[in-house]
Amino acid sequence: MFTIHARDPRSRARRGILHLARGDVATPAFVPLATRGAVKTLEPRDVEALGYEMVLGNTFHLFLAPGPELMTALGGLNRFMRWERPIITDSGGFQVFSMGHGGVADEIKARRGATPGDSAGAILAIEERGVRFRSYLDGAQRFLGPESSMAMQAALDSDIALVFDECTPFHVTRDYTARAMERTHRWLQRCLDWHEDRGSGGQAVYGIVQGGIEPDLRTISVQTVAASACDGIAIGGSLGQDKAQMHGVVDFTTAELARVAPDRPRHLLGIGEIDDLIVGVQAGIDTFDCAMPTRLGRHGTAIVPDPERRWRLDLVKSRWRAADEPILEGCPCPACDGGFSRAYLHYALRAHEMTAARLVTQHNLSYIARLMADLRAAIAAGRMSEVAAALLAGAPPGTAV
Amino acid sequence: MFTIHARDPRSRARRGILHLARGDVATPAFVPLATRGAVKTLEPRDVEALGYEMVLGNTFHLFLAPGPELMTALGGLNRFMRWERPIITDSGGFQVFSMGHGGVADEIKARRGATPGDSAGAILAIEERGVRFRSYLDGAQRFLGPESSMAMQAALDSDIALVFDECTPFHVTRDYTARAMERTHRWLQRCLDWHEDRGSGGQAVYGIVQGGIEPDLRTISVQTVAASACDGIAIGGSLGQDKAQMHGVVDFTTAELARVAPDRPRHLLGIGEIDDLIVGVQAGIDTFDCAMPTRLGRHGTAIVPDPERRWRLDLVKSRWRAADEPILEGCPCPACDGGFSRAYLHYALRAHEMTAARLVTQHNLSYIARLMADLRAAIAAGRMSEVAAALLAGAPPGTAV
Repeated sequence: MFTIHARDPRSRARRGILHLARGDVATPAFVPLATRGAVKTLEPRDVEALGYEMVLGNTFHLFLAPGPELMTALGGLNRFMRWERPIITDSGGFQVFSMGHGGVADEIKARRGATPGDSAGAILAIEERGVRFRSYLDGAQRFLGPESSMAMQAALDSDIALVFDECTPFHVTRDYTARAMERTHRWLQRCLDWHEDRGSGGQAVYGIVQGGIEPDLRTISVQTVAASACDGIAIGGSLGQDKAQMHGVVDFTTAELARVAPDRPRHLLGIGEIDDLIVGVQAGIDTFDCAMPTRLGRHGTAIVPDPERRWRLDLVKSRWRAADEPILEGCPCPACDGGFSRAYLHYALRAHEMTAARLVTQHNLSYIARLMADLRAAIAAGRMSEVAAALLAGAPPGTAV
Repeated sequence: MFTIHARDPRSRARRGILHLARGDVATPAFVPLATRGAVKTLEPRDVEALGYEMVLGNTFHLFLAPGPELMTALGGLNRFMRWERPIITDSGGFQVFSMGHGGVADEIKARRGATPGDSAGAILAIEERGVRFRSYLDGAQRFLGPESSMAMQAALDSDIALVFDECTPFHVTRDYTARAMERTHRWLQRCLDWHEDRGSGGQAVYGIVQGGIEPDLRTISVQTVAASACDGIAIGGSLGQDKAQMHGVVDFTTAELARVAPDRPRHLLGIGEIDDLIVGVQAGIDTFDCAMPTRLGRHGTAIVPDPERRWRLDLVKSRWRAADEPILEGCPCPACDGGFSRAYLHYALRAHEMTAARLVTQHNLSYIARLMADLRAAIAAGRMSEVAAALLAGAPPGTAV
């Protein structure tokens, strides 16, 4: 299911191919979010034209509506959303547990200063069986656990399913993190059992490593997940309270994975800023998903080669009012290559034109697709260190390899 | 500037070509709105792919921002919004006067039951010189009159400019309508004078016929506008309080135009429902603009061949929840030909996915582009009556010619 074609001698970076039911995915790869059956503002043909081979669907949202029965009747997520290439689905665990802890989504991802309350639902009970909660759609009581998550992912018929996990935020105690991790391990086995009994042989299953920021818990979790029959391994849970700690947790965890599960593919959940992608690939991550490029894009922030400003350019700011230049000279995306100026994007974003949201989204996804292509080429060419350093220093994609 | 290639012997319908600065436009044609420099949800390449040759830019909104100086500095509207084909710009009169009369936009267009208050600005004074009003953007006092409207349209560098007119709603007195019409005629001459002195020779100018629902006033206005040096003639103002009255006013006005200005192109302002387009073409209208297909589309109503439901299908309704069928079988638009089901569009519209707004917008504009192509082909083939009857009875575009 995963073949490794090249390795960087000076880091854990590897160039590989995921062989999935609906086709191959060259890694390292970024996976755009198609949370509710659409990469926001785009059609599938746009996502493909930007160079992406896989998208991520959201089990939690799709479980609430259309739900498993209708999704099965409509032939699964690929057919529903008209995306013919591979899909990875998360388990819904992250979203369910986010409801229990205000702002947990931001805390888990080590984002500071974010506003709590990503979701509008509420947890009613966390039990060994699973989680009871209120739907944000209609207030109805719903239940999601290992078996129902896997059943929903079977209905979605994704190429890669993720096991149902309890996702703990940074602020909980070490003891709570440990108990949640142990339950996640029991749920891992139940997910794999369900999949063996009732799942599709064509669907790969990834386990999830938990353990928060505690090295000994991460080690135990790596060993437990690696000892299971899962096809790939995702890294989830709290990665710390800032970027340095997050990079440390990822590096520690992938080092452990390299010892006990060297050949299985690794996915880093919910991380995707430019430096995180470069550092993550060097740590040995094969795939990433993140809302950042699409979310920033539709709110008017473009990704540019500017490490000092976290690779961000806010086109809504009035300083771009008369700027007759593209977001990034030489960029082949529909916004830059299409000749749209910063002045136009500024104007159209302020006028709330969806056209502008779509143009900046495409720019951001194009930037990241080309960045990942650079990293793949760099590993294959044995030039990962230099290319990573250049990209981290602010080289635009396409110039460093 | 306008050549007529075929005429329907049994109506005033004609098949022609507008020869404009940036290319030809085959008529009869529908002109999608690019109100603030974007056809909502679409990129210019999408609009072109749907078969459109011209779009309409909005002088009022673009006057408030970016404004004439910046628009000139940025090279005009075509360059700004990256649309390389012809653009027609309205004069801003309709929007300015809409602010003075709550819901006037709906009333002028004979739409009943619409909510007043399309705009959030306010008229401060209507004078012979022009109109003083408050900007909805920042509350600042602004002024728009014949000369400043033409100057803004020169900055936009559109292929067709419209003269500045006072647009009266249905509920005003005959006396007010008559006085407004007379002022509009004086403004017509000032617009033409400004254009001759300072405008571009490449820009065509259309006069606007006013006179509300009064036949004698419409006749006077037709004669006055026809006697001027304008290149084409638009029909504006109140067209009545219902659809039958609107069709009557249009028919009466085009009959008058056929006598005194038979060879000049005719534009019907702000009208574009399916039956209005067919009836309007038979009355002798060459071009139409309307917010309907894009506005309905992004709110989830698709145009379908169903006269009994005013050609409308509301995809947000729960009856489409499990409908595994396209909006319209055999339709070549990106939504139908792309295989997106009503169930998917229903789900994605309810989830407020811009992707769905965009898909239905494309369907609607595709439907109207193909309808207009049918009407052009029907006139050329001498089959206008049969084709119009079939389309009015619910034949899908592409099946009746």
